[in-house]
Amino acid sequence: MTSTTTTGQERKAPGRPRNAQADEAILDAVLTLMAEGQSAAAVSIESVAAKAGVGKATIYRRWPNKEALLIDAVRSMKGPIPELAGVSARADLIAMVTANRSSRVQEFGKVTACLLPELMKDEQLRQMHHAVMEPRREVMREILRRGIASGELRADLNIELTLLMLSGPSMAQGLFGTETGVPLEEFPVVLVDALLRGAAA
Amino acid sequence: MTSTTTTGQERKAPGRPRNAQADEAILDAVLTLMAEGQSAAAVSIESVAAKAGVGKATIYRRWPNKEALLIDAVRSMKGPIPELAGVSARADLIAMVTANRSSRVQEFGKVTACLLPELMKDEQLRQMHHAVMEPRREVMREILRRGIASGELRADLNIELTLLMLSGPSMAQGLFGTETGVPLEEFPVVLVDALLRGAAA
Repeated sequence: MTSTTTTGQERKAPGRPRNAQADEAILDAVLTLMAEGQSAAAVSIESVAAKAGVGKATIYRRWPNKEALLIDAVRSMKGPIPELAGVSARADLIAMVTANRSSRVQEFGKVTACLLPELMKDEQLRQMHHAVMEPRREVMREILRRGIASGELRADLNIELTLLMLSGPSMAQGLFGTETGVPLEEFPVVLVDALLRGAAA
Repeated sequence: MTSTTTTGQERKAPGRPRNAQADEAILDAVLTLMAEGQSAAAVSIESVAAKAGVGKATIYRRWPNKEALLIDAVRSMKGPIPELAGVSARADLIAMVTANRSSRVQEFGKVTACLLPELMKDEQLRQMHHAVMEPRREVMREILRRGIASGELRADLNIELTLLMLSGPSMAQGLFGTETGVPLEEFPVVLVDALLRGAAA
Protein backbone atom coordinates (compact mmCIF):
# COMPACT_ATOMS: atom_id res chain seq x y z
CA MET A 1 0.00 0.00 0.00
CA THR A 2 2.87 2.37 0.72
CA SER A 3 3.79 2.24 -2.93
CA THR A 4 0.48 3.77 -3.96
CA THR A 5 -0.09 6.19 -1.11
CA THR A 6 3.42 7.63 -0.84
CA THR A 7 2.99 9.76 -3.92
CA GLY A 8 6.09 10.93 -5.67
CA GLN A 9 8.41 8.64 -3.72
CA GLU A 10 10.27 5.65 -5.10
CA ARG A 11 9.02 2.31 -3.83
CA LYS A 12 10.60 1.12 -0.61
CA ALA A 13 12.01 -2.40 -0.80
CA PRO A 14 9.69 -4.53 1.36
CA GLY A 15 11.25 -5.95 4.52
CA ARG A 16 10.63 -9.57 3.56
CA PRO A 17 12.23 -10.82 0.35
CA ARG A 18 9.26 -13.08 -0.45
CA ASN A 19 7.03 -10.01 -0.66
CA ALA A 20 9.43 -8.31 -3.05
CA GLN A 21 9.40 -11.41 -5.25
CA ALA A 22 5.62 -11.55 -5.27
CA ASP A 23 5.41 -7.81 -6.01
CA GLU A 24 7.72 -8.21 -8.97
CA ALA A 25 5.84 -11.23 -10.29
CA ILE A 26 2.54 -9.34 -10.03
CA LEU A 27 3.83 -6.20 -11.77
CA ASP A 28 5.49 -8.35 -14.45
CA ALA A 29 2.18 -10.15 -14.98
CA VAL A 30 0.37 -6.83 -15.58
CA LEU A 31 2.96 -5.69 -18.11
CA THR A 32 3.12 -9.08 -19.83
CA LEU A 33 -0.67 -9.23 -20.23
CA MET A 34 -0.65 -5.79 -21.82
CA ALA A 35 2.35 -6.62 -23.98
CA GLU A 36 0.31 -9.62 -25.19
CA GLY A 37 -2.37 -7.21 -26.35
CA GLN A 38 -4.82 -6.80 -23.47
CA SER A 39 -6.06 -3.25 -22.96
CA ALA A 40 -5.95 -1.67 -19.52
CA ALA A 41 -9.72 -2.13 -19.39
CA ALA A 42 -9.41 -5.84 -20.19
CA VAL A 43 -6.76 -6.60 -17.55
CA SER A 44 -8.45 -7.99 -14.42
CA ILE A 45 -7.17 -8.83 -10.94
CA GLU A 46 -8.15 -12.46 -11.75
CA SER A 47 -6.03 -12.58 -14.91
CA VAL A 48 -3.08 -10.93 -13.16
CA ALA A 49 -3.29 -13.38 -10.26
CA ALA A 50 -3.38 -16.33 -12.64
CA LYS A 51 -0.43 -15.01 -14.68
CA ALA A 52 1.65 -14.22 -11.57
CA GLY A 53 0.83 -17.53 -9.88
CA VAL A 54 -0.50 -15.87 -6.74
CA GLY A 55 -3.92 -15.62 -5.09
CA LYS A 56 -6.15 -12.60 -5.61
CA ALA A 57 -5.86 -11.87 -1.86
CA THR A 58 -2.09 -11.44 -2.26
CA ILE A 59 -2.74 -8.69 -4.81
CA TYR A 60 -5.44 -7.00 -2.75
CA ARG A 61 -3.15 -6.96 0.31
CA ARG A 62 -0.74 -4.74 -1.66
CA TRP A 63 -2.98 -2.69 -3.95
CA PRO A 64 -6.45 -1.39 -3.11
CA ASN A 65 -7.71 -1.69 -6.69
CA LYS A 66 -6.72 -2.34 -10.29
CA GLU A 67 -6.01 1.31 -11.03
CA ALA A 68 -3.39 1.52 -8.26
CA LEU A 69 -1.82 -1.68 -9.62
CA LEU A 70 -1.65 -0.25 -13.17
CA ILE A 71 0.03 2.93 -11.92
CA ASP A 72 2.60 0.87 -10.00
CA ALA A 73 3.24 -1.23 -13.13
CA VAL A 74 4.07 1.96 -15.03
CA ARG A 75 6.24 3.13 -12.14
CA SER A 76 8.10 -0.19 -12.05
CA MET A 77 9.39 0.43 -15.58
CA LYS A 78 11.53 3.28 -14.33
CA GLY A 79 14.73 2.82 -12.31
CA PRO A 80 15.06 4.81 -9.07
CA ILE A 81 15.94 8.50 -9.33
CA PRO A 82 19.76 8.40 -9.24
CA GLU A 83 22.09 10.36 -6.99
CA LEU A 84 23.33 13.21 -9.15
CA ALA A 85 26.95 14.37 -9.09
CA GLY A 86 25.87 17.95 -9.78
CA VAL A 87 29.14 18.69 -11.60
CA SER A 88 27.75 19.11 -15.12
CA ALA A 89 24.33 19.26 -16.71
CA ARG A 90 25.60 16.77 -19.30
CA ALA A 91 26.51 14.08 -16.75
CA ASP A 92 23.32 14.60 -14.73
CA LEU A 93 21.09 14.44 -17.83
CA ILE A 94 22.80 11.23 -18.95
CA ALA A 95 22.19 9.75 -15.48
CA MET A 96 18.50 10.70 -15.61
CA VAL A 97 17.92 9.46 -19.17
CA THR A 98 19.64 6.21 -18.21
CA ALA A 99 17.41 5.81 -15.13
CA ASN A 100 14.29 6.50 -17.20
CA ARG A 101 15.26 3.79 -19.72
CA SER A 102 15.47 0.77 -17.43
CA SER A 103 15.58 -2.73 -18.91
CA ARG A 104 11.84 -2.92 -18.33
CA VAL A 105 11.30 0.13 -20.53
CA GLN A 106 13.08 -1.70 -23.33
CA GLU A 107 10.89 -4.74 -22.84
CA PHE A 108 7.57 -3.03 -22.16
CA GLY A 109 7.94 0.42 -23.75
CA LYS A 110 5.09 -0.18 -26.17
CA VAL A 111 2.81 -0.99 -23.25
CA THR A 112 3.36 2.44 -21.68
CA ALA A 113 2.58 4.31 -24.86
CA CYS A 114 -0.69 2.44 -25.16
CA LEU A 115 -1.53 2.47 -21.45
CA LEU A 116 -0.97 6.17 -20.82
CA PRO A 117 -3.83 7.54 -22.93
CA GLU A 118 -6.19 5.10 -21.23
CA LEU A 119 -4.95 6.07 -17.77
CA MET A 120 -5.23 9.78 -18.56
CA LYS A 121 -8.98 9.53 -19.13
CA ASP A 122 -9.53 8.94 -15.42
CA GLU A 123 -8.89 11.99 -13.25
CA GLN A 124 -7.70 9.98 -10.24
CA LEU A 125 -5.33 7.89 -12.38
CA ARG A 126 -4.09 11.03 -14.08
CA GLN A 127 -3.22 12.51 -10.70
CA MET A 128 -1.52 9.32 -9.54
CA HIS A 129 0.55 9.17 -12.71
CA HIS A 130 1.42 12.82 -12.32
CA ALA A 131 2.63 12.07 -8.80
CA VAL A 132 4.94 9.34 -10.17
CA MET A 133 6.32 11.27 -13.12
CA GLU A 134 6.42 14.87 -11.99
CA PRO A 135 9.26 14.45 -9.46
CA ARG A 136 11.47 13.02 -12.24
CA ARG A 137 10.54 15.82 -14.59
CA GLU A 138 11.22 18.38 -11.88
CA VAL A 139 14.70 16.88 -11.27
CA MET A 140 15.43 17.26 -14.98
CA ARG A 141 14.11 20.84 -15.02
CA GLU A 142 16.40 21.64 -12.09
CA ILE A 143 19.41 20.16 -13.94
CA LEU A 144 18.58 22.37 -16.94
CA ARG A 145 18.10 25.47 -14.77
CA ARG A 146 21.47 24.88 -13.05
CA GLY A 147 23.10 24.34 -16.45
CA ILE A 148 21.72 27.65 -17.69
CA ALA A 149 22.86 29.42 -14.52
CA SER A 150 26.38 27.96 -14.79
CA GLY A 151 26.67 28.97 -18.44
CA GLU A 152 26.89 25.34 -19.66
CA LEU A 153 23.50 25.65 -21.41
CA ARG A 154 22.00 28.35 -23.60
CA ALA A 155 20.33 31.15 -21.67
CA ASP A 156 17.28 31.01 -24.00
CA LEU A 157 16.71 27.24 -23.64
CA ASN A 158 13.02 26.18 -23.72
CA ILE A 159 13.03 23.85 -20.72
CA GLU A 160 9.74 22.04 -21.45
CA LEU A 161 10.69 21.47 -25.10
CA THR A 162 14.06 20.12 -23.95
CA LEU A 163 12.28 17.63 -21.67
CA LEU A 164 10.27 16.43 -24.69
CA MET A 165 13.49 16.12 -26.71
CA LEU A 166 14.98 13.96 -23.95
CA SER A 167 11.95 11.66 -23.53
CA GLY A 168 10.40 11.61 -27.01
CA PRO A 169 13.13 9.84 -28.99
CA SER A 170 13.10 6.81 -26.64
CA MET A 171 9.34 6.68 -26.91
CA ALA A 172 9.37 6.89 -30.71
CA GLN A 173 12.07 4.23 -30.85
CA GLY A 174 9.99 1.91 -28.66
CA LEU A 175 6.91 2.39 -30.83
CA PHE A 176 8.57 2.16 -34.24
CA GLY A 177 11.39 -0.22 -33.33
CA THR A 178 13.83 2.09 -35.14
CA GLU A 179 17.40 0.86 -35.40
CA THR A 180 19.81 3.74 -34.75
CA GLY A 181 23.00 1.69 -34.71
CA VAL A 182 23.62 2.87 -31.14
CA PRO A 183 23.96 0.09 -28.51
CA LEU A 184 21.16 0.38 -25.93
CA GLU A 185 23.51 1.17 -23.05
CA GLU A 186 25.15 4.01 -25.00
CA PHE A 187 21.86 5.55 -26.15
CA PRO A 188 21.56 8.07 -23.26
CA VAL A 189 25.08 9.44 -23.87
CA VAL A 190 24.57 9.69 -27.62
CA LEU A 191 21.14 11.34 -27.23
CA VAL A 192 22.30 13.90 -24.64
CA ASP A 193 25.38 14.77 -26.70
CA ALA A 194 23.29 15.16 -29.88
CA LEU A 195 20.93 17.45 -27.98
CA LEU A 196 23.75 19.53 -26.49
CA ARG A 197 25.93 19.90 -29.60
CA GLY A 198 23.14 20.41 -32.11
CA ALA A 199 22.91 19.10 -35.65
CA ALA A 200 24.29 22.23 -37.33
CA ALA A 201 27.89 22.08 -38.51
CA MET B 1 -9.03 1.07 -53.07
CA THR B 2 -6.22 3.02 -54.68
CA SER B 3 -5.42 4.46 -51.29
CA THR B 4 -4.55 1.06 -49.90
CA THR B 5 -2.90 -0.53 -52.90
CA THR B 6 -0.86 2.43 -54.14
CA THR B 7 1.74 1.92 -51.46
CA GLY B 8 3.87 4.86 -50.52
CA GLN B 9 1.79 7.35 -52.49
CA GLU B 10 -0.38 10.07 -51.03
CA ARG B 11 -4.13 9.62 -51.52
CA LYS B 12 -5.52 11.05 -54.69
CA ALA B 13 -8.48 13.34 -54.19
CA PRO B 14 -11.50 11.40 -55.54
CA GLY B 15 -13.16 12.87 -58.61
CA ARG B 16 -16.57 13.27 -57.00
CA PRO B 17 -16.81 15.58 -53.98
CA ARG B 18 -19.46 13.39 -52.30
CA ASN B 19 -16.99 10.52 -52.20
CA ALA B 20 -14.35 12.68 -50.60
CA GLN B 21 -16.85 13.77 -47.95
CA ALA B 22 -17.87 10.19 -47.22
CA ASP B 23 -14.21 9.14 -47.07
CA GLU B 24 -13.45 11.84 -44.56
CA ALA B 25 -16.52 11.03 -42.44
CA ILE B 26 -15.53 7.35 -42.38
CA LEU B 27 -11.88 8.03 -41.45
CA ASP B 28 -13.00 10.55 -38.81
CA ALA B 29 -15.38 7.93 -37.39
CA VAL B 30 -12.52 5.42 -36.99
CA LEU B 31 -10.32 7.97 -35.21
CA THR B 32 -13.17 9.25 -33.04
CA LEU B 33 -14.11 5.73 -31.92
CA MET B 34 -10.51 5.08 -30.93
CA ALA B 35 -10.17 8.49 -29.26
CA GLU B 36 -13.24 7.48 -27.22
CA GLY B 37 -11.33 4.48 -25.95
CA GLN B 38 -12.09 1.62 -28.36
CA SER B 39 -9.11 -0.57 -29.19
CA ALA B 40 -8.27 -1.38 -32.80
CA ALA B 41 -9.60 -4.88 -32.13
CA ALA B 42 -12.90 -3.51 -30.83
CA VAL B 43 -13.53 -1.17 -33.77
CA SER B 44 -15.87 -2.85 -36.27
CA ILE B 45 -17.10 -1.90 -39.74
CA GLU B 46 -20.59 -1.78 -38.19
CA SER B 47 -19.59 0.72 -35.51
CA VAL B 48 -17.68 2.85 -38.04
CA ALA B 49 -20.67 2.88 -40.42
CA ALA B 50 -23.02 3.91 -37.61
CA LYS B 51 -20.68 6.66 -36.42
CA ALA B 52 -20.07 8.00 -39.93
CA GLY B 53 -23.75 7.82 -40.89
CA VAL B 54 -23.09 5.66 -43.96
CA GLY B 55 -23.99 2.13 -44.93
CA LYS B 56 -21.52 -0.73 -44.50
CA ALA B 57 -21.51 -1.16 -48.28
CA THR B 58 -20.16 2.38 -48.69
CA ILE B 59 -17.18 1.41 -46.55
CA TYR B 60 -16.61 -1.90 -48.32
CA ARG B 61 -16.66 -0.16 -51.71
CA ARG B 62 -13.61 1.84 -50.59
CA TRP B 63 -11.70 -0.51 -48.29
CA PRO B 64 -11.44 -4.27 -48.67
CA ASN B 65 -11.27 -4.89 -44.90
CA LYS B 66 -10.95 -3.28 -41.48
CA GLU B 67 -7.17 -3.44 -41.51
CA ALA B 68 -6.91 -1.38 -44.70
CA LEU B 69 -9.33 1.13 -43.17
CA LEU B 70 -7.21 1.44 -39.99
CA ILE B 71 -4.05 2.04 -42.02
CA ASP B 72 -5.79 4.74 -44.03
CA ALA B 73 -7.02 6.34 -40.79
CA VAL B 74 -3.41 6.60 -39.62
CA ARG B 75 -2.36 7.92 -43.02
CA SER B 76 -5.13 10.55 -42.94
CA MET B 77 -3.54 12.15 -39.87
CA LYS B 78 -0.58 13.27 -41.95
CA GLY B 79 -0.69 16.09 -44.47
CA PRO B 80 0.64 15.39 -47.99
CA ILE B 81 4.40 15.28 -48.50
CA PRO B 82 5.19 18.94 -49.32
CA GLU B 83 7.13 20.31 -52.26
CA LEU B 84 10.59 21.06 -50.86
CA ALA B 85 12.50 24.21 -51.81
CA GLY B 86 15.81 22.33 -51.49
CA VAL B 87 17.63 25.52 -50.48
CA SER B 88 18.41 24.63 -46.87
CA ALA B 89 18.06 21.57 -44.67
CA ARG B 90 16.51 23.81 -42.02
CA ALA B 91 13.64 25.02 -44.26
CA ASP B 92 13.00 21.54 -45.69
CA LEU B 93 12.95 19.93 -42.22
CA ILE B 94 10.50 22.56 -40.98
CA ALA B 95 8.26 21.84 -44.00
CA MET B 96 8.33 18.10 -43.29
CA VAL B 97 7.73 18.40 -39.53
CA THR B 98 4.83 20.77 -40.30
CA ALA B 99 3.33 18.28 -42.76
CA ASN B 100 3.67 15.45 -40.24
CA ARG B 101 1.83 17.47 -37.58
CA SER B 102 -1.48 18.14 -39.35
CA SER B 103 -4.47 19.38 -37.38
CA ARG B 104 -5.62 15.77 -37.17
CA VAL B 105 -2.39 14.79 -35.41
CA GLN B 106 -3.17 17.39 -32.76
CA GLU B 107 -6.65 16.00 -32.34
CA PHE B 108 -5.93 12.30 -32.58
CA GLY B 109 -2.23 12.00 -31.66
CA LYS B 110 -3.00 9.77 -28.69
CA VAL B 111 -4.84 7.36 -30.97
CA THR B 112 -1.78 6.75 -33.11
CA ALA B 113 0.44 5.99 -30.17
CA CYS B 114 -2.04 3.39 -28.98
CA LEU B 115 -2.93 2.05 -32.42
CA LEU B 116 0.60 1.51 -33.70
CA PRO B 117 1.67 -1.25 -31.30
CA GLU B 118 -1.55 -3.11 -32.13
CA LEU B 119 -1.01 -2.69 -35.88
CA MET B 120 2.61 -3.83 -35.61
CA LYS B 121 1.57 -7.25 -34.28
CA ASP B 122 0.17 -8.16 -37.69
CA GLU B 123 2.78 -8.66 -40.37
CA GLN B 124 0.54 -7.46 -43.22
CA LEU B 125 -0.49 -4.35 -41.29
CA ARG B 126 3.14 -3.73 -40.37
CA GLN B 127 4.08 -3.80 -44.04
CA MET B 128 1.19 -1.52 -45.00
CA HIS B 129 2.15 0.97 -42.31
CA HIS B 130 5.76 0.78 -43.42
CA ALA B 131 4.61 1.61 -46.95
CA VAL B 132 2.83 4.72 -45.65
CA MET B 133 5.55 5.98 -43.34
CA GLU B 134 8.79 4.96 -45.02
CA PRO B 135 8.55 7.39 -47.97
CA ARG B 136 8.26 10.29 -45.49
CA ARG B 137 11.15 9.03 -43.45
CA GLU B 138 13.22 8.58 -46.61
CA VAL B 139 12.49 12.19 -47.68
CA MET B 140 13.74 13.36 -44.28
CA ARG B 141 16.85 11.16 -44.52
CA GLU B 142 17.58 12.67 -47.93
CA ILE B 143 17.23 16.22 -46.52
CA LEU B 144 19.73 15.32 -43.79
CA ARG B 145 22.15 13.71 -46.27
CA ARG B 146 22.03 16.80 -48.49
CA GLY B 147 22.56 19.03 -45.45
CA ILE B 148 25.63 17.03 -44.49
CA ALA B 149 26.96 17.18 -48.06
CA SER B 150 26.43 20.96 -48.27
CA GLY B 151 28.18 21.54 -44.95
CA GLU B 152 25.03 22.86 -43.26
CA LEU B 153 24.87 19.83 -40.94
CA ARG B 154 27.54 18.01 -38.92
CA ALA B 155 29.44 15.40 -40.89
CA ASP B 156 29.05 12.89 -38.01
CA LEU B 157 25.26 13.27 -37.68
CA ASN B 158 23.43 10.06 -36.71
CA ILE B 159 20.60 10.22 -39.26
CA GLU B 160 18.28 7.65 -37.64
CA LEU B 161 18.66 9.26 -34.20
CA THR B 162 17.94 12.66 -35.76
CA LEU B 163 14.70 11.26 -37.25
CA LEU B 164 13.69 10.13 -33.74
CA MET B 165 14.54 13.57 -32.36
CA LEU B 166 12.27 15.15 -35.00
CA SER B 167 9.30 12.80 -34.47
CA GLY B 168 9.60 11.88 -30.78
CA PRO B 169 8.93 15.26 -29.13
CA SER B 170 5.56 15.66 -30.94
CA MET B 171 4.62 12.15 -29.90
CA ALA B 172 5.61 12.71 -26.26
CA GLN B 173 3.72 16.00 -26.27
CA GLY B 174 0.58 14.28 -27.59
CA LEU B 175 0.78 11.57 -24.95
CA PHE B 176 1.63 13.73 -21.95
CA GLY B 177 -0.17 16.92 -23.01
CA THR B 178 2.94 18.92 -22.12
CA GLU B 179 2.61 22.69 -22.41
CA THR B 180 5.80 24.12 -23.93
CA GLY B 181 4.57 27.70 -24.28
CA VAL B 182 5.16 27.42 -28.05
CA PRO B 183 2.07 28.09 -30.24
CA LEU B 184 1.18 24.94 -32.22
CA GLU B 185 1.90 26.54 -35.60
CA GLU B 186 5.38 27.63 -34.48
CA PHE B 187 6.31 24.27 -32.95
CA PRO B 188 8.04 22.88 -36.08
CA VAL B 189 10.30 25.97 -36.39
CA VAL B 190 11.16 25.98 -32.69
CA LEU B 191 11.86 22.23 -32.65
CA VAL B 192 14.06 22.24 -35.76
CA ASP B 193 16.01 25.27 -34.51
CA ALA B 194 16.51 23.67 -31.09
CA LEU B 195 17.78 20.53 -32.82
CA LEU B 196 20.12 22.44 -35.13
CA ARG B 197 21.58 24.89 -32.61
CA GLY B 198 21.92 22.50 -29.71
CA ALA B 199 21.31 23.15 -26.02
CA ALA B 200 24.94 23.89 -25.15
CA ALA B 201 25.90 27.56 -24.69
